[in-house]
Amino acid sequence: MDPSIDVKRVGYLGPQGTFTQEALGFCDLIRAWPAQPYATISQVYEAVLAGECGAGLVPIENSLEGAVTATLDLLIHRAGLQICREVVLPVRHNLLVREDVEFSRVKGILSHPQALAQCADYLRRTFPGIPQEAANSTADAARRVAETGRPGEPLQDWAAIGTATAGELYGLKTLSRDIQDSDENYTRFFLLASGDAAPTGQDKTSLAFTLDRDRPGGLYEVMGEFANRKINLSKIESRPTKKALGHYIFLIEFEGHRAEPRCREALDGVKARSHFFRLFGSYPAWPGNQIGVPGGG
Amino acid sequence: MDPSIDVKRVGYLGPQGTFTQEALGFCDLIRAWPAQPYATISQVYEAVLAGECGAGLVPIENSLEGAVTATLDLLIHRAGLQICREVVLPVRHNLLVREDVEFSRVKGILSHPQALAQCADYLRRTFPGIPQEAANSTADAARRVAETGRPGEPLQDWAAIGTATAGELYGLKTLSRDIQDSDENYTRFFLLASGDAAPTGQDKTSLAFTLDRDRPGGLYEVMGEFANRKINLSKIESRPTKKALGHYIFLIEFEGHRAEPRCREALDGVKARSHFFRLFGSYPAWPGNQIGVPGGG
Repeated sequence: MDPSIDVKRVGYLGPQGTFTQEALGFCDLIRAWPAQPYATISQVYEAVLAGECGAGLVPIENSLEGAVTATLDLLIHRAGLQICREVVLPVRHNLLVREDVEFSRVKGILSHPQALAQCADYLRRTFPGIPQEAANSTADAARRVAETGRPGEPLQDWAAIGTATAGELYGLKTLSRDIQDSDENYTRFFLLASGDAAPTGQDKTSLAFTLDRDRPGGLYEVMGEFANRKINLSKIESRPTKKALGHYIFLIEFEGHRAEPRCREALDGVKARSHFFRLFGSYPAWPGNQIGVPGGG
Repeated sequence: MDPSIDVKRVGYLGPQGTFTQEALGFCDLIRAWPAQPYATISQVYEAVLAGECGAGLVPIENSLEGAVTATLDLLIHRAGLQICREVVLPVRHNLLVREDVEFSRVKGILSHPQALAQCADYLRRTFPGIPQEAANSTADAARRVAETGRPGEPLQDWAAIGTATAGELYGLKTLSRDIQDSDENYTRFFLLASGDAAPTGQDKTSLAFTLDRDRPGGLYEVMGEFANRKINLSKIESRPTKKALGHYIFLIEFEGHRAEPRCREALDGVKARSHFFRLFGSYPAWPGNQIGVPGGG
């Protein structure tokens, strides 16, 4: 039912304590495998291609790590791997401090700039006028507070914004949970491997393509391939791209597995109209009413 | 031809020295106006709504400032303003240092994490093993290097990655230009005002809508409204959204002005099929073969 995987080790976008590490625990296939952090998405991809890891977990949407483009570019241009799972987690931020620090003593806030932005209202209400500084990642913020937050050190009485996992990893105390301003943010991850997944009955399929010419109606005809077969699209996106690939690259996700006859027909129809065509794979759809809860899994 | 604007002042997403400030100089309508930086996209929006500014320039795509969602959310949910111009600039990074610092002396690199990531190959080749630190923005990195980079200070002999504008603003020297790894990154900005722009013959129109039900074919029918009238789509995107708005919100941009009869008919057709429908405005298309060059404008 799953791609044949020899090496039961999973690579992921590190460092330890990031959202991607939290997501490992929500993915059935690789939950029990040893996990190896890599510094970049590209390094995760190459590690799986080289067989160092049997699969790699990377963010694809709305991450703090600016991940969309890097992951998509690899799927489109580097190729060689397929999507075998998706994981969708709400973005949840926590206020992390050293054991002896209380609310009234917090002197500054350290985190990734987008994490600071996602908690802006909370910080304005709770810590008005208190300095904020940028870190390379939420995990890096937690590490720095843990390592240089003792009395007399540069980050004495500072707090980090980060994941529950980072708090545990660096021995920090959680002063406040779920401090993000919006509950609508989520991060989506793809598990990449040498093959995709077998049909489960609740599947999604992702692909990218360009059309021969950017003429009105070309995309409309492609969408007809799906609409006429009652295949629901769960995502559609156009992105400007290298001239070599044409003016736009289209990204589509639909509900169904590439092995189903109606899906195979639709894909054949898209392929026949495409200049560039790449199937990223079919994988079980993440249950919409059952979004993973980091720390609660 | 342009929205009637009483207050000839433009608000923009600050601080000074960011990409948004660079973009001001590329926008015909407001190039000569006094410009006022605001700390958030929301504050720019409110300043225009309140009449403090006649227009506001904000990033909408692929910015370092995590801007897409904030700007889109305001256009969708807050409403009240329309798009009257777009500006598209390539992302160009520069290595900025204090006057007395040379290549061989650079001890560390400071910038926004995504700017560091966008220059990762360059930094690996040019400054192997040299520490990198995060700043809140590229402009903030330039300011900190300028203010605390003298001998004996914490950032002595550090370099910032930032815009040419930030370099000038803080009196820094440019050691190296265009150090970004990819020339494909760009940032797109919208100029928002109380009304949109009159037709020029080379226009684009942006809108958002949701469909009554998430049934297969609904989006296909909407696209037929455009395809059947030979109207070219320049962008299409689906985004998961609040349940109150339905499962997906669709964002479409097409080539044409809402005042053209065929465009008006297509828009009426979309509206008739939509649950939620919002026209963001029609505006002159940024010339594709004439992308603005910061510092060269």
